[in-house]
Amino acid sequence: MNDAFWGIDIGGTNVKLGLVSGEGEILARGSIPTQLPDGPDVLVDRISEVCRGQVEQAGIPLDQVRALGIGCPGPLDLKNGKLLRTANLTGYNFFPLRAKMSEKLQRPSVLDNDANMICWGEFWMGAGKDVSDMILYTLGTGIGGAIVCEGEIVHGHFGNGGELGHIIVHPDGRECGCGQKGCLEAYASATQIVRRFTEALATGRDSSLKKINATGRKITSKDVFTAGGQGDELAMEIIDGMCRALALASVSMRHATEPEMVILAGGVSKVGGVLTDRVKKFYDQTMWKLNDDPMEFAIAKLGDDAGIVGTAGAALHAWQKDQLYPVGQ
Amino acid sequence: MNDAFWGIDIGGTNVKLGLVSGEGEILARGSIPTQLPDGPDVLVDRISEVCRGQVEQAGIPLDQVRALGIGCPGPLDLKNGKLLRTANLTGYNFFPLRAKMSEKLQRPSVLDNDANMICWGEFWMGAGKDVSDMILYTLGTGIGGAIVCEGEIVHGHFGNGGELGHIIVHPDGRECGCGQKGCLEAYASATQIVRRFTEALATGRDSSLKKINATGRKITSKDVFTAGGQGDELAMEIIDGMCRALALASVSMRHATEPEMVILAGGVSKVGGVLTDRVKKFYDQTMWKLNDDPMEFAIAKLGDDAGIVGTAGAALHAWQKDQLYPVGQ
Repeated sequence: MNDAFWGIDIGGTNVKLGLVSGEGEILARGSIPTQLPDGPDVLVDRISEVCRGQVEQAGIPLDQVRALGIGCPGPLDLKNGKLLRTANLTGYNFFPLRAKMSEKLQRPSVLDNDANMICWGEFWMGAGKDVSDMILYTLGTGIGGAIVCEGEIVHGHFGNGGELGHIIVHPDGRECGCGQKGCLEAYASATQIVRRFTEALATGRDSSLKKINATGRKITSKDVFTAGGQGDELAMEIIDGMCRALALASVSMRHATEPEMVILAGGVSKVGGVLTDRVKKFYDQTMWKLNDDPMEFAIAKLGDDAGIVGTAGAALHAWQKDQLYPVGQ
Repeated sequence: MNDAFWGIDIGGTNVKLGLVSGEGEILARGSIPTQLPDGPDVLVDRISEVCRGQVEQAGIPLDQVRALGIGCPGPLDLKNGKLLRTANLTGYNFFPLRAKMSEKLQRPSVLDNDANMICWGEFWMGAGKDVSDMILYTLGTGIGGAIVCEGEIVHGHFGNGGELGHIIVHPDGRECGCGQKGCLEAYASATQIVRRFTEALATGRDSSLKKINATGRKITSKDVFTAGGQGDELAMEIIDGMCRALALASVSMRHATEPEMVILAGGVSKVGGVLTDRVKKFYDQTMWKLNDDPMEFAIAKLGDDAGIVGTAGAALHAWQKDQLYPVGQ
């Protein structure tokens, strides 16, 4: 019989749960609301119930489940398996998530931040399946990032490595929510695409999206991409600014950890190949020509399953390398 | 008895050679001209003679020498131990340096580029002795770089990782010799400091260094630092541009591989603490304040010995990890 692993992907709104085989097959999947008011201990109970139910549902013996992986928005204290001060999960500050969860499920475990777990999912079973060195950007409300170097996630000295959204692409550029100026995130997150667009409208620039604005509905990043696809000049300008920022960060990362692939994940990446083509165009314009080693740009493949596949896969990887944290630790 | 390792640091002008103990003590050191016209096979013979002589000089048995490390300007084919097309070593294109050298000395070996080897020296026995994650810039004619992540050099997928001189700090900025625009190297190498300074003089800017220019002697980067230290406004402006570029690259690298220390090495770093203080000032101004994990800026400690200590240390490290290439391979 095969080994299986629980994958627990905690988001601000929902917790996605999956039971995944050692070959990356999803044997069961589910989702429960994160339900902030109940507090983290109640959440751990509920997650545990669903996880055990998934084993029955999959019809495999419980002892075939070797370990669990947990993904969670950072910042995290990886060494002690705790959340730190959380922005989106009220009441979870300093909660010892890893110990509680593994105690409840009586399995050793591994915890990492959500972007690293999505990256691991894509690396193990998704767009990065055949590579050994890659970086990934999650393009959503903000921009998360992760680095795989020689088959391992780069955590950095204090556990906050891979924060690629805060690479500086335009010094003295736009203010980022993080307090820095000119971060990648200030040009390429969904939020900032919309903000840049509406700022430009406010200065009197014309666009086909003015009519949406007039109805009172808020313009979304998807609207901007649709308009850009239809030839809207302002929309294209904003999208190009985004793609160039991604290309600049990728050139710098290529010189640093030298990935062979850049993967775009998260909501904004759903526009697909037009996005990777555009980023690659700017990358090729910018990158030196001193060697012709290939660099690939790809859209993430696992979609909403990336979190559970990544967390379960991280548990498998830590199990194989004997790096799991024992029950309750 | 202790183990010892040969360290062979091949530069454009000189080859530095050392016999180094497993504890990092230099038992013998020497230097021979690289003598380009004789070609690489003759050089291998000479290096080998000096290396064997050093063992006698140190008074240790030959079989105590376990392996050799070789550092060389890139680009290199690390997998096959070959030089590729070299910029500064005429007649060395595609020379199988690692195999030839290890055949001659009858010891297994390891080859890496010079910046990685200097970095390894500083990491093992120098300014980075007590850290596990660091980056290093070699500030000379150009800018080399290297990354240590969890105690290992980051080579990147094709072996050209750690090229930190070509991180882009100012998009649309100064042209770099590599063909990109706005690279760190275009602001912070010795060559570029002088070029920026003389360009500014040519536009009519005033400076205390005009008198040197008038004598016909060429202004050096050291002159610029001396003038800056004496309050010369233009010199300070150029130095600040350099320090800010180093800070911008370091902020981006902090978010990427999250080093706990940045080490400045190479000729320009000899100006010392004033340089690290200034880079740190710009770093602190630029870096987010979302956490207060420390980041240290330090000047390299090993000076001209970094290459031989680094190459010998890399041989020791590969020996311990069973990653040496066998004789002649």
